[in-house]
Amino acid sequence: MSKVTGRARFADDLSFHGMLFASTVYSQHPHARIKKVDMSKAMDIPEVLAVITPDDVPGSNGVMRGFLVLAGEKVKYVGDGVALVVAKSETAARKGRDAVVVDYEPLPPVLSIDDALKSGASLVHEDKEDNIISKSRYQLKKGDLERGFAEADFIVERTYETQFVAHAYIEPEVVIAVPDFNQEFMTIYGSIQNPFSARAAVAAALGWSVGQVKIVQNAVGGTFGGKDECAILNACRAAIASIKTHRPVKLSLSREESMVEGPKRHPYRFNFKVGVKKDGSILAMKSELIAQGGAYNNKAQFTNWRASIHATGPYNIPNIETRVFGVYTNTIYGGAMRGFSSPQCIFAQESLMDEIAQELDMDPLELRRKNALSPGHTLPDGQLLGEGGLPAPLPDIIDNTARKFKYSKPAQPQEGSVKKGIGIACGFRGAGLGAEAGADATGAIVTVQSDGSITIVSGLTDNGQGLKVAFSQIVAEVLGVSLDRIVYPTTDTSIIPDGGPTVASRGVMIGGRAMEKAALEVKKKILVVAGEILQLDPEKLTIENEEIFSPDNPEKRVSYMDVVSRAYATGQMLAALSWFSTGVPEFDYETGQGKSYPTYSWGMVITEVEVDTETGLVKVNRALSTHDVGTAINPAAIKGQVYGGYVMGQGMAVLEDIEQANGFVKSKNFDEYLIPTAMDIPDIDVLIVETGDTYGPFGGKSVGEPGTEMAAASVANAIAQATGRRIRNLPCNLERVFLGYNLTRQGTAR
Amino acid sequence: MSKVTGRARFADDLSFHGMLFASTVYSQHPHARIKKVDMSKAMDIPEVLAVITPDDVPGSNGVMRGFLVLAGEKVKYVGDGVALVVAKSETAARKGRDAVVVDYEPLPPVLSIDDALKSGASLVHEDKEDNIISKSRYQLKKGDLERGFAEADFIVERTYETQFVAHAYIEPEVVIAVPDFNQEFMTIYGSIQNPFSARAAVAAALGWSVGQVKIVQNAVGGTFGGKDECAILNACRAAIASIKTHRPVKLSLSREESMVEGPKRHPYRFNFKVGVKKDGSILAMKSELIAQGGAYNNKAQFTNWRASIHATGPYNIPNIETRVFGVYTNTIYGGAMRGFSSPQCIFAQESLMDEIAQELDMDPLELRRKNALSPGHTLPDGQLLGEGGLPAPLPDIIDNTARKFKYSKPAQPQEGSVKKGIGIACGFRGAGLGAEAGADATGAIVTVQSDGSITIVSGLTDNGQGLKVAFSQIVAEVLGVSLDRIVYPTTDTSIIPDGGPTVASRGVMIGGRAMEKAALEVKKKILVVAGEILQLDPEKLTIENEEIFSPDNPEKRVSYMDVVSRAYATGQMLAALSWFSTGVPEFDYETGQGKSYPTYSWGMVITEVEVDTETGLVKVNRALSTHDVGTAINPAAIKGQVYGGYVMGQGMAVLEDIEQANGFVKSKNFDEYLIPTAMDIPDIDVLIVETGDTYGPFGGKSVGEPGTEMAAASVANAIAQATGRRIRNLPCNLERVFLGYNLTRQGTAR
Repeated sequence: MSKVTGRARFADDLSFHGMLFASTVYSQHPHARIKKVDMSKAMDIPEVLAVITPDDVPGSNGVMRGFLVLAGEKVKYVGDGVALVVAKSETAARKGRDAVVVDYEPLPPVLSIDDALKSGASLVHEDKEDNIISKSRYQLKKGDLERGFAEADFIVERTYETQFVAHAYIEPEVVIAVPDFNQEFMTIYGSIQNPFSARAAVAAALGWSVGQVKIVQNAVGGTFGGKDECAILNACRAAIASIKTHRPVKLSLSREESMVEGPKRHPYRFNFKVGVKKDGSILAMKSELIAQGGAYNNKAQFTNWRASIHATGPYNIPNIETRVFGVYTNTIYGGAMRGFSSPQCIFAQESLMDEIAQELDMDPLELRRKNALSPGHTLPDGQLLGEGGLPAPLPDIIDNTARKFKYSKPAQPQEGSVKKGIGIACGFRGAGLGAEAGADATGAIVTVQSDGSITIVSGLTDNGQGLKVAFSQIVAEVLGVSLDRIVYPTTDTSIIPDGGPTVASRGVMIGGRAMEKAALEVKKKILVVAGEILQLDPEKLTIENEEIFSPDNPEKRVSYMDVVSRAYATGQMLAALSWFSTGVPEFDYETGQGKSYPTYSWGMVITEVEVDTETGLVKVNRALSTHDVGTAINPAAIKGQVYGGYVMGQGMAVLEDIEQANGFVKSKNFDEYLIPTAMDIPDIDVLIVETGDTYGPFGGKSVGEPGTEMAAASVANAIAQATGRRIRNLPCNLERVFLGYNLTRQGTAR
Repeated sequence: MSKVTGRARFADDLSFHGMLFASTVYSQHPHARIKKVDMSKAMDIPEVLAVITPDDVPGSNGVMRGFLVLAGEKVKYVGDGVALVVAKSETAARKGRDAVVVDYEPLPPVLSIDDALKSGASLVHEDKEDNIISKSRYQLKKGDLERGFAEADFIVERTYETQFVAHAYIEPEVVIAVPDFNQEFMTIYGSIQNPFSARAAVAAALGWSVGQVKIVQNAVGGTFGGKDECAILNACRAAIASIKTHRPVKLSLSREESMVEGPKRHPYRFNFKVGVKKDGSILAMKSELIAQGGAYNNKAQFTNWRASIHATGPYNIPNIETRVFGVYTNTIYGGAMRGFSSPQCIFAQESLMDEIAQELDMDPLELRRKNALSPGHTLPDGQLLGEGGLPAPLPDIIDNTARKFKYSKPAQPQEGSVKKGIGIACGFRGAGLGAEAGADATGAIVTVQSDGSITIVSGLTDNGQGLKVAFSQIVAEVLGVSLDRIVYPTTDTSIIPDGGPTVASRGVMIGGRAMEKAALEVKKKILVVAGEILQLDPEKLTIENEEIFSPDNPEKRVSYMDVVSRAYATGQMLAALSWFSTGVPEFDYETGQGKSYPTYSWGMVITEVEVDTETGLVKVNRALSTHDVGTAINPAAIKGQVYGGYVMGQGMAVLEDIEQANGFVKSKNFDEYLIPTAMDIPDIDVLIVETGDTYGPFGGKSVGEPGTEMAAASVANAIAQATGRRIRNLPCNLERVFLGYNLTRQGTAR
């Protein structure tokens, strides 16, 4: 609301007395040794107060998975920070940055997956044996792959590739470090997705206890998973500058800096070998996935685990072997981004499904309907679906989505240069962090205040996805009070135990369960006090519309406010700190078998496009996005998530691509990095399916990531269907669509 | 520590971007109707941005017990705020303040207890029937008073009076209101003793929910009970100014403003009638106590309740009748101050004991020893002492203190103009808020962080009395970890449920119990995780020196940090929000009988003075202050409290007095309001007595207030003993001592 009215205060709107400004000196090479940093010219600039190098880091320079606050010995990509200039104005800081002279010894850069795997390739991390990210290897084995291939009527082999995609949030990274009383405490204000990770990193960089660092998350102008490592490193830099100068320090990235330094969606290469029966049954699938991690093992170790579970799609394939790994390159690095490897997997997997259908000359919808995971089947990880197992709504979703969309395959060939195409993508998504993180757990505090208002605190953060509203609704519902009693303060790490990151669609699922649990504990306390007033057994009482009564004897009742007053007068606390944990799931990392995720969301998207074969232009006409959300806690918010998510997938499908040349980023701003505009957005319809899943709060499941993950695949499939030409590497941009249609004979563009 | 090194940041050290300054227009009459406020000249000053009157209060103007944020219709004392001027600089704000023209219609002022009770007196509060503070009436009845008098050998009747005393903190009141994102939240930084009361008042003044207001307590330059109502009203004014201007607003009181506006120690008048046997037994005591509340019923309703329980001293008096009430006057008002009516009561009561001893020609020590409450006796409220009841260490305390001091009554008469005197005072003090507040309850949060540091949060505040250290010690002790793991962040009302005010020596007693409870809950969780690692029953485990093991099998052990790591890896929360409540005590307000306090602290002070009868100058030579502290958690901190407390009592005895003339304050700064300096401080010895009281955490009891409450009485008794002249109204200043000695014949000065 405050964002709509313009009243929201973003980190860049904040200013503190005596605040200084910092600017990072970035690497000028994708791969080089640092020989010398000469800061003398920078220090000559009158307003420059300090130049900070790795020697100034009071605690640990290595604060997260191989990242350094500032690079000291060598640079591994052009976004590495080498030094930090602190000045009285932002202009002077940038001037100072440009005046720092760094002497480099360039090294041969590793720029692609192929480069990385080449024998004799230079090493991105010299303390490793090769360029493979060892922690990012996963495998899943189900059934007997060789028998599956032997029993198949034919084999399909395909390779697909995806690109680096930017989060393209409106607001680039901004952090402000404010030293507190006595310089014993540090508060970081910022556009930071995961305050607890940030707190740990800043404390490590300063050599302090985490309790001495407080992260206050400001209104966030979008994150989509991206305001994480880069924001955190910048928070560490600002904190160090603040300790060194005894002043608040702001570090605000320009769009260009944000594009170069920040994480991106990982590119993946998918090699598939599939054994298929003539009736369309898929018997066996072997997949090899290679993620391009970039300069750091940032999230490949996590996105790859998710990919290992999801690579073969929501289909009943009895024999599976999936291997995944990531590689280091001297390029921008991959990170968390809405969908977390699923958009890549679904693009590849669903392109593959269409290509199998083509081989079979079968309607793509029919092929999916035939193979869809259904009650009685088991998931790739071996979990049972249907009775006694997890919900399996995909067959119904396929039928209902097709009916609502009025799906029919356009007749081929089409007249004229503008061709219409309809593309389908199905998907499933494990909810939460799953076995990737061990236990998935977070806390919540619910406090009834003396004036009857209710403060709720979550360790998870509202990054614009609407957690605030969902949590408020959950608490108001449990306590039977008006929604406007709920006060949700800005997230502050000193209020609540570390609840892990706000990622992986765990917000409502895990955070909501913790919130529900805390509210239930508070409800119990309210009923005890009400029982004292009414002289009734609290177990028999209920709350509705701010009145507490026993359904047996509804005449005798007491108001919520009277209960609150009595509780305060008699020294009874109406507050609870609760914790929800999935526990450590049973999972075998050798075979990928076990309880990978506690439950799954299911969905399907159908997209209709028009392709102008004379220009390569793709116009997305309309789409229907169907999502199993368990219970729809806030239908308007769900639709909002799906609209935005779809457009993000559409951008990935046809426009977005970070162009790099020799390790240097070319598309640094939105003049070159194109994202969909309001003019490109199609008519998007949302079909919400409620499956009565009992896992989330009130049965709610996540939709933030499912909303985006099937869109690119459906658009790519629609283009292939319209043109009869398959593009196997994203994006399906103008050139690829035009050239693919006009220059290729085999119907396959590359 | 940070205060000693000069690194502590007080509220006045803080500055915020765009910060404005406010200044309050104070009343120019002790009692007057406001006819008109003309702000035009103030608004003409270029830097003045706003003049705020009661019409600008968005919520409620009446935020606390009769106080108004700004007076609208009439002023009741010279510290009432009439308007608030907001400007870009402090100088302009003060200039603006002086330019506001208020047209008053003066009313006859009520200036003393006698004025207040006169028939036909004007009414301080026109909505009341008279000037008696109706809520401040209490009585206590024990035994049969008339029979007691009848059985007595003689009757003693005496009247004593005390003065207005200032807290004289180094730092006057400062508040800064900072509007948060969207103006939906407000943070108040300040030197505020009771953040939760402040939060409630500011929220009421703004018309907001309490959760929208956050109070951050800065380093406090002393409060002693005083940084309360005045600081809170100023916080409300700053908040309103901030909402009106959309800017941070600072309101910083000068020493003169602080002396005039702020609360003071209440003056009391004591009328005693005592029935005594020739052997020294006190059979009956009737007391009437009248408190001068000043312009508001601020704390008289609470100090009077405490006085009703303590008025007859720590003596075994079978027949008691005590009546207490307070009156309104058009003067500065009474508030909480270290001791909370006890220093007044003990001065009166212990003067009376000496006068009874004089009548009996008995050593004052012997009289006290004879009547001291001992095991088997009952307290004034009827509670049993000794076996099966509360500890009763007073007889031992008297013996041990006399022995350690080498007490003997100086021979009389003394030669020369400088006379030596030794004065005794005994005291007892109910711990915590007692039945005054219903239940006494507060919360604590203890969180083990991923790096092993432990964050502890209390709803109570460290106002310099050392709660931080005591709480840290309690938690480190319970968890068996090193003290330097404990992190104690600045108090912040948004972190923890409202735990009531930090007053009445409840800090360690109540807050410490909550802290201990939270630490014990966390310990249980640590032992569960350790049990998983060690494969042992958690119930059998213990923690010592950061290692967990079973005493049966001490070889098998696991380190604290390994347990923390496992807890985080497996999603187990090592945190607890706990609540400690005394429950609502059984107490009969008609008779004052019941469980007034859960336990009592006992003590005794002996002071030696030299009085120069030619000048009236009193030199305090040495003192011994004995305190039953239950268990001495931090002996150094206890001694620190007693040293400071004694000197505060010494100031009350011989120097301090707020001079008022016709309702105007004359002694507004330390040139006229004299407090003891380093040169005046005697040799103070502290005798710590441990009684094994089980009530507080590890048996700890409060000492912050006992440390001050007996000192003034002992000094006054020493002066009387030296000079042979009794001064019955404090302070025993130069004039009273000199004139009392040289001009009175009866040995009684007035």
